[in-house]
Amino acid sequence: MKTVVIPMCHSNNVIESISSFIDRDNLSFILIGDVEETKKIAVNSGVNIDGVNLIEELNEVKACTLAAKLISEGKGDIAMKGLVHTSIFLKALLRKEFGLLEDKSLVSLVSRFIIPNYHKPLFLTDAGINISPTLDQKIKIIKNAIFVANSLGIHEPKVACLSPIEVVNHKIPSTEDGFALSQMSVFGDAIVDGPLSFDISLSKEAARIKGATSVVAGDADILFAPNLDVGNALYKSFTLFGNAKVAGVVAGLKIPVVLTSRADSKEVKVDSLELALNMK
Amino acid sequence: MKTVVIPMCHSNNVIESISSFIDRDNLSFILIGDVEETKKIAVNSGVNIDGVNLIEELNEVKACTLAAKLISEGKGDIAMKGLVHTSIFLKALLRKEFGLLEDKSLVSLVSRFIIPNYHKPLFLTDAGINISPTLDQKIKIIKNAIFVANSLGIHEPKVACLSPIEVVNHKIPSTEDGFALSQMSVFGDAIVDGPLSFDISLSKEAARIKGATSVVAGDADILFAPNLDVGNALYKSFTLFGNAKVAGVVAGLKIPVVLTSRADSKEVKVDSLELALNMK
Repeated sequence: MKTVVIPMCHSNNVIESISSFIDRDNLSFILIGDVEETKKIAVNSGVNIDGVNLIEELNEVKACTLAAKLISEGKGDIAMKGLVHTSIFLKALLRKEFGLLEDKSLVSLVSRFIIPNYHKPLFLTDAGINISPTLDQKIKIIKNAIFVANSLGIHEPKVACLSPIEVVNHKIPSTEDGFALSQMSVFGDAIVDGPLSFDISLSKEAARIKGATSVVAGDADILFAPNLDVGNALYKSFTLFGNAKVAGVVAGLKIPVVLTSRADSKEVKVDSLELALNMK
Repeated sequence: MKTVVIPMCHSNNVIESISSFIDRDNLSFILIGDVEETKKIAVNSGVNIDGVNLIEELNEVKACTLAAKLISEGKGDIAMKGLVHTSIFLKALLRKEFGLLEDKSLVSLVSRFIIPNYHKPLFLTDAGINISPTLDQKIKIIKNAIFVANSLGIHEPKVACLSPIEVVNHKIPSTEDGFALSQMSVFGDAIVDGPLSFDISLSKEAARIKGATSVVAGDADILFAPNLDVGNALYKSFTLFGNAKVAGVVAGLKIPVVLTSRADSKEVKVDSLELALNMK
């Protein structure tokens, strides 16, 4: 049995996103927020939440803190953001007293794309949380993505550390970090290479023409963006122009966290929760 | 009459790229390189270069310098890179004695994409030359892109200065520069706004959901990438995943420069030369 905890649940968006999960075996929900409003939304959306655990709490911070507390006590397995600011939600989950952060870890967004022009699922990180990670933080972000891929059954994921070019150039920090990361033996069940350009990472044809010999070339499972500017732009490019289906989880905590935004479609939210549920 | 000058022309790639242009009225070529080899390639490719001006010069640097000299003397209107390293080619064109650099300008790559999921041509800059431009350099890069758009008949192009978010955050330099650029009145016939995220810049739907009121929102003509990491990754993402057709020119010089790479398809080269020829 897995339990999903959602602070500030009183939103059409939240109720519709979880509607297809409500009747599943081995799955339950704890919804925290405006109980009356939540019931009203459920009725209007035709979603039966009769058996669902509802807790009244109208204050954003308190609702998020309660969610974190319940999870820290083992009463919840997955946290999902409701109608609340991301920073408040994450801050509550990261409060030291709850001990939900993995040792020496940091939180990062791991996004999984199904792209018509790519032959397998592609993970991208970090498109939403870390701005200009240091080399040490990059190690942690990559570890998080590998953890997610591993836990979804992808053994030895191929990680491409993205740069404009494949050679180290001290004027382009991403090439230096990409090379440094490729030389480390800290990543466990994964193959990390870099610096690699986008086309060599993801196109066998480009890799062939440019004579790239990396085992990651043309076959990356995880695309590691050197900073948020790159990750965020690629995320949107994949979905808007590449017709990609996307789902995402926040990794680095002891539990999967679903953190979709208001502008995401219902499908993105459903797929993200499904992704979190499938993590071992 | 326009004349295209190509140093180090003795390559299948070059000859095939220009084959459809050879017989055009009002267009001529000066090909510099290994004359015998060039003739052989033309015969093998079925391209008739009988009337073409051929100049023997086997040394890369000398061939590029001669091309720049001819253009500076008014004997050529467009430079196109042959079988030579980009740096050698550009260095020759930028030699002070030839005076080909526009006053107070810098060279930058302006790429034009035709993307199935976008309602008009989209220009992206800079995906290939400038690594981490300063604010002053960013002004020049944007001016170059506006010049190219204007000269192709696009009046008041809408320029989106790309960032992960729409508000200024001092931890994200691209947001600060994007805002600064949006406040300047130095761009002539264009509308420059920023910071703007990728989806707000290019999707009317995302702009509507997020309540963006910028006139650029969902309708950008020019996407300005804050650095090469972003520009380069987007370029490849558009072509690989977005099924985009791309063409590009180097701007900032007094003449259009065609600078495609070995791995580009013949179509990219043909379209890039066509783009350069269409510039006023």
